[in-house]
Amino acid sequence: MFSKIEHIGIAVTDATASVELFSRLFIAQPYKTEIVESENVSTIFFQVGPNKIELLQALTTDSAIAKFIEKKGEGIHHIAYAVEDIHAEMNRLKNEGFIFINEEPKQGADNKLIAFIHPKSSNGVLIELCQEMK
Amino acid sequence: MFSKIEHIGIAVTDATASVELFSRLFIAQPYKTEIVESENVSTIFFQVGPNKIELLQALTTDSAIAKFIEKKGEGIHHIAYAVEDIHAEMNRLKNEGFIFINEEPKQGADNKLIAFIHPKSSNGVLIELCQEMK
Repeated sequence: MFSKIEHIGIAVTDATASVELFSRLFIAQPYKTEIVESENVSTIFFQVGPNKIELLQALTTDSAIAKFIEKKGEGIHHIAYAVEDIHAEMNRLKNEGFIFINEEPKQGADNKLIAFIHPKSSNGVLIELCQEMK
Repeated sequence: MFSKIEHIGIAVTDATASVELFSRLFIAQPYKTEIVESENVSTIFFQVGPNKIELLQALTTDSAIAKFIEKKGEGIHHIAYAVEDIHAEMNRLKNEGFIFINEEPKQGADNKLIAFIHPKSSNGVLIELCQEMK
């Protein structure tokens, strides 16, 4: 069961320019910047009420974000839903036929355990599940 | 000022198959189906906590959704933010340099006044503002 949209990930090429743009859009500064070494991305978070926007900039040319931008251009990269128990949700969704990119949850940005559902099993949408770490 | 992500619009080719898929994802049925004649689309809404997912299926080959799918495939189409006063927000954002696709708000699905910001002025992201109609 998903409790809300936790965040939307947006792939950007120039984080400085994008932070300036989204700050004007939201009338707010980002509340956090964090490098996720395992994904070779820099992440920048904005709060919008109960939801967040996560800007994603590639740190290396072989990161998934660099490949995404090369193929599709800058824009919306994924939808992340908040879950209480990521292991239980992964089991439930695997039984429903959804295909996960990572078989086990891994540590993501912003103090979360995360797992991605492959867009080929979810209508072209890259879906992230994320559980707040205690 | 945006109070939350009101909904995420997802372009689909086969609404029946997608409703079945998203119902399994969310463990919930859609709460509304509505045709928006002016856009030549059929819309289907799911509630996810404080947020919604809007499936969009083209009714004609010249609808914006048909063109989107032809160019990019099925997937995330837009992010909609909830605003209290759409006219005030449009003025504010125009002054900030954002470019609107429609100059005046128009009636959208789910009892909303809506306006779209062109992705070229917002980092490749199609943004919708929406205000609940009284």
